[in-house]
Amino acid sequence: MKKISFLIGMCTLLHISGRAQNHVCHSPNGQIRLSLGLDGKGQPQYSVMFKGKAIVEPSHLGLKLKDHDKPRADFGLSYAQLAIDSAKVDESWEPIWGEVKTIRNNYKSLILTLKDNAANSSVVKIEFRVFNDGVGFRYELPDQQNLKSFILLDELSTFNLTGDHKIWWMPGDFDTNEYNYNTSLISEIEKNTKKRDGNIFTSTPIKGAFVQTPLMAKTAESVYVNIHEAALVDYPAMDLQFDTKTFEAKATLAHDASNPEESDPAKKNKAYLRTPAKSPWRTLVISDDARQILSSKMILNLNEPSKVKNPSFIKPMKYCGIWLEMHLGLSTWDMAGTQAASDAGSDGKTTKRTKHGATTANTKKYIDFASKNGLGGVLVEGWNTGWEEWFGLWKEDVFDFVTPYPDYDVVEVNRYAHSKGVNMITHHETSGSVTNYDRWMDTAYKAMNKWGSPALKSGYVGRIIPRGEYHDGFWMVSHYLRAIKKAAEKNIMVVAHEPVRPTGLHRTYPNFMAAEAARGQEFNFWSEGNPPEHETILPFTRIMGGPMDYTPGIFKIKKSSYYPGAKEQVHTTLAKQLALYITLYSPVQMVTDLPENYEAKPDAFQFIKDVAVDWDDTKILLAEPGDYIATARKAKGTNNWFLGAISDENERTLELKFDFLDKGKSYEATFYKDAPDASWDNNPEAYVIEKKTITSKTKMPVKLAKGGGVAVSILAK
Amino acid sequence: MKKISFLIGMCTLLHISGRAQNHVCHSPNGQIRLSLGLDGKGQPQYSVMFKGKAIVEPSHLGLKLKDHDKPRADFGLSYAQLAIDSAKVDESWEPIWGEVKTIRNNYKSLILTLKDNAANSSVVKIEFRVFNDGVGFRYELPDQQNLKSFILLDELSTFNLTGDHKIWWMPGDFDTNEYNYNTSLISEIEKNTKKRDGNIFTSTPIKGAFVQTPLMAKTAESVYVNIHEAALVDYPAMDLQFDTKTFEAKATLAHDASNPEESDPAKKNKAYLRTPAKSPWRTLVISDDARQILSSKMILNLNEPSKVKNPSFIKPMKYCGIWLEMHLGLSTWDMAGTQAASDAGSDGKTTKRTKHGATTANTKKYIDFASKNGLGGVLVEGWNTGWEEWFGLWKEDVFDFVTPYPDYDVVEVNRYAHSKGVNMITHHETSGSVTNYDRWMDTAYKAMNKWGSPALKSGYVGRIIPRGEYHDGFWMVSHYLRAIKKAAEKNIMVVAHEPVRPTGLHRTYPNFMAAEAARGQEFNFWSEGNPPEHETILPFTRIMGGPMDYTPGIFKIKKSSYYPGAKEQVHTTLAKQLALYITLYSPVQMVTDLPENYEAKPDAFQFIKDVAVDWDDTKILLAEPGDYIATARKAKGTNNWFLGAISDENERTLELKFDFLDKGKSYEATFYKDAPDASWDNNPEAYVIEKKTITSKTKMPVKLAKGGGVAVSILAK
Repeated sequence: MKKISFLIGMCTLLHISGRAQNHVCHSPNGQIRLSLGLDGKGQPQYSVMFKGKAIVEPSHLGLKLKDHDKPRADFGLSYAQLAIDSAKVDESWEPIWGEVKTIRNNYKSLILTLKDNAANSSVVKIEFRVFNDGVGFRYELPDQQNLKSFILLDELSTFNLTGDHKIWWMPGDFDTNEYNYNTSLISEIEKNTKKRDGNIFTSTPIKGAFVQTPLMAKTAESVYVNIHEAALVDYPAMDLQFDTKTFEAKATLAHDASNPEESDPAKKNKAYLRTPAKSPWRTLVISDDARQILSSKMILNLNEPSKVKNPSFIKPMKYCGIWLEMHLGLSTWDMAGTQAASDAGSDGKTTKRTKHGATTANTKKYIDFASKNGLGGVLVEGWNTGWEEWFGLWKEDVFDFVTPYPDYDVVEVNRYAHSKGVNMITHHETSGSVTNYDRWMDTAYKAMNKWGSPALKSGYVGRIIPRGEYHDGFWMVSHYLRAIKKAAEKNIMVVAHEPVRPTGLHRTYPNFMAAEAARGQEFNFWSEGNPPEHETILPFTRIMGGPMDYTPGIFKIKKSSYYPGAKEQVHTTLAKQLALYITLYSPVQMVTDLPENYEAKPDAFQFIKDVAVDWDDTKILLAEPGDYIATARKAKGTNNWFLGAISDENERTLELKFDFLDKGKSYEATFYKDAPDASWDNNPEAYVIEKKTITSKTKMPVKLAKGGGVAVSILAK
Repeated sequence: MKKISFLIGMCTLLHISGRAQNHVCHSPNGQIRLSLGLDGKGQPQYSVMFKGKAIVEPSHLGLKLKDHDKPRADFGLSYAQLAIDSAKVDESWEPIWGEVKTIRNNYKSLILTLKDNAANSSVVKIEFRVFNDGVGFRYELPDQQNLKSFILLDELSTFNLTGDHKIWWMPGDFDTNEYNYNTSLISEIEKNTKKRDGNIFTSTPIKGAFVQTPLMAKTAESVYVNIHEAALVDYPAMDLQFDTKTFEAKATLAHDASNPEESDPAKKNKAYLRTPAKSPWRTLVISDDARQILSSKMILNLNEPSKVKNPSFIKPMKYCGIWLEMHLGLSTWDMAGTQAASDAGSDGKTTKRTKHGATTANTKKYIDFASKNGLGGVLVEGWNTGWEEWFGLWKEDVFDFVTPYPDYDVVEVNRYAHSKGVNMITHHETSGSVTNYDRWMDTAYKAMNKWGSPALKSGYVGRIIPRGEYHDGFWMVSHYLRAIKKAAEKNIMVVAHEPVRPTGLHRTYPNFMAAEAARGQEFNFWSEGNPPEHETILPFTRIMGGPMDYTPGIFKIKKSSYYPGAKEQVHTTLAKQLALYITLYSPVQMVTDLPENYEAKPDAFQFIKDVAVDWDDTKILLAEPGDYIATARKAKGTNNWFLGAISDENERTLELKFDFLDKGKSYEATFYKDAPDASWDNNPEAYVIEKKTITSKTKMPVKLAKGGGVAVSILAK
């Protein structure tokens, strides 16, 4: 089912004025129109229309390069056109795991080949792909005599938006994505900075109207535009700097630690490249239906097919583990007992943290729990020596990733897990000391192979070593991918915490299961937490790039259950925690709460036991960023569906239609709903469970509490 | 033969005025007098006298520290004295290899324990050791409640010299030590900057009156003072910033890549430490006899005893190899044939570089040559893939250190070498990409073990990765030692090129055989080269810290022998090249020239075949920095001596006395002398060989040509 045709001159060539030339390309369905060409000064520019109206007004394109020892003419300043090529692709492919069984890749493309005006001119290609659901473009520098190795100084791409749109955004920062989201007009970015900290350990917010991608925008005419990137490989991550008067956003790349004497970020080194080189894709997902934004597979389509030759080791799974204990202050990462995340209650009085969590005996309890409830994995944090002084000290030799604490028998734990049909997920916290992790990586992965642990959770908490580098810079972007590739060679699945935010690379490296790279559940346990709207924004922002290890499923919502007087809490109802297994897509989902909290509510826990983690189909039923999302997914290889719907801080009634079900069949549906008097703040743990027989004709209003949700398992009869 | 006594109050306590207290300590022979105490403001200071005259006037002491997240009181600003302790040590030890069989460690020490005046005061100790040949001091921060992990911002140590001394110096630079030396008064440092480049690939000269250590100074009264450091571990290297009016030099440490926004180098981060922590020793070697400077073992004595448990794999040796070929442009490092160091003749016309040097066949020729002439090792550079684009591109993944070029059979070459009683020296050029080398190190060392190659030459040409770090910074200092320690675990000897300059660590890690870390012979082949005085300065500067892999023994002095019209040449006579095997101490010495150049002069080559590389005794017979040095060494386990004497650009006659020989014995001496009409510039390859029977009573004037020398082998009858 592959159909690719290359056509020359398929797209219209328009002469506008003087030297200016514009080439036009429409999406396969004709709704999106790209215009690309050189302006009167020989500078490349593009614009995008959707259903006849401008979405991106004429915007700049270009790269600024530097030779290693001599200056060179900048790309992006003045070009002559060498060629214009076009192509049309319509093909389908099957992901190793995912939200749907088959993905259609259908676009028309334009490739503009330019040469700069220097004496020894260099060649750059700019490729646009126009899909029904958006536009992607990237720069390509072919191998050529006049351009071999070079330094990337700046990318000149802009996104000249058409008005003062509403945007869902977090502050520009190349060290963290763990902010809460702001919702404001573009013109308000600099005014709206209340959420520039929020208990983030390592943040380096950028002053000015900087925001991160994926950025979700909505025009006054209710057209949704998502700006992000795809296939971030050998390149730094991009933030966006807005001109808050013209609403033009410029690509801004994380710089490296060299050239400290250069104070202008645009002149600092961004990447060290060698032709042939390609930039990541700049992506604009566009629709007037918010649901289509969430359904878009454009970012995946812009990534390369899987390079993992034998993917049989890759298995989506649910997992539990020794993790929440520490965030609650009930046990500690370090054996000395000083390193729980939480200083107990906000009453400031009580603390329960005293004991090491990762003991052999405690781990076996979790293995038993996993085995009993059909979970595939058990994560144990704090198992290895080094946690006593791991944090905040910018220390290089923190962990060796192979030496367990004396009270943790890593061989026995893995053996016991295997005997129970469970796999151990090994934890590699780097503490940001990535030079150290790189040195140990071969040894650590070999040890995992020896123990039989097929998955690792990596962590990058804290300031990076090499000192002066950012989490999102070129060096670190290379590191994350190096770790994923090495893991693939060793048949290891990776879940990365605090990496650069994903850009669809899980298509190419499907052992890269999920990432954090956003504000996860953990913040609810020791900070102001995540507001009820948080999970309605994540799918429109962070999760556009790839699965998130959010760690849903909290049943004991308020920290005062542990520490009387404590004010911290999860800002959802229990029912919404169940719905998140559907709303927040990931092929690995943590069953996060303490086993005893699940065992106390076996009826509600049944949903988590039942819910799948790999899917043949996904339907976005209802969606509006910051307000609500309702999603239905069909479990892989079955005729069963699972539905999750969530609300923000508002109570609301959603009209659920089950027309995605097979016609003429009936299903047994179990509804896990907020109790009538539930709300995230006053009564979050109140739920009701109802069973109904439904068909594709069923329609049903369901009331969601403030911060509430509903989860439905729909089993084919 | 170990005698240590700890005495309290052994040193005199002097009350001077107000709060000021000075403690005094004399060297065992009484000639050096140290005074140490707090000044009226509670700031620690010291001064040094030699034979009753001031050598170091009152000078500052102190460290400036920073907590990771909060400011703290600086050390060095105001202290109270907690304790003053003293000790006396007189012991002897035997190095694994060295210039002498037994080394006496004889000093008196003062340890001043101070606390700062902050509310949560911290404790620092300053230890001085006063030897007959100089003074060493260091800071020690004991483990303590109020000081755990911290950042070192600055070291406040100064060396307040007593006048406008003559100094032999190179510009301050934390990326290279490959400058030619300047000789000037202190007051002239900033005027005398002609040698601030000199074809050095990666230099970052520091503006101002900065100089490097080891710094050699000579007072108007002909007292010699050498300033350097010992045991540089977990700390950045030190340069010195002079006040050219007061002649006070301040310790200036290499900073790291963090905090680019901080423009004041004194406020940038220097090191990341955890108590207990110790600084390197600051060393002042002092004598009114220049020969005693060269004989000093104080820097070795200030290093820790050997930590290599089974040193049997450590074997001093001479070696030849595929190296000069590339510097001459006769063959190339890279298989593609583009990467010789030399663009052939300075006539700009001819080039012979076309072919890859490191082929299996070519290597076997060198193995045969080594085997035939009793050399222990063969070095091959350019054996591994990656050289086509290794240099100047700041590229990360350059080499993998295990993959040979297809024309180099690494297994066969090692097998063949072993069959001939020779060992291969494996070359690991990092191209400055140290993060990459770190990742490959385990694999690369294991491969060497597998091949049976017991020694490696490492190289650090080019800008460092982590980008923004210096060769001499904290991160790199840690790296060099990590490489040496890992090598020791794998029974591998290390010769490092372009590392930080040595500080006597070969005592502690005797598998660290030698280093470059100065301007070696190679510069003579493709640059203005090294002036005739160069090798008379090296022992007083660079080699104070440890052995140098200078690569002596060039027989074909002028490049015009290869390229008619070429102006480059070695700036010595052939006889001086022989003498350098004695003058420039190293337990590994390259037999550098092409085999055919040695085979053409077998009589002169006999000295190189005979000369030893490990010694039971060494006598410095005559010495003046920048002018001449005559050295005699007694070969390990024999009664044979070898003598080398060299001159600078001047012709001179040295009166050689052989009174170091056993009395009453006669020896057969072979003199390899400059021919009467020899000179480095006009007739460098003219030598005469004379044999004589000598005794301890023999005295003899020997004429050295301009840039000339004499080598003598003295075999016991």
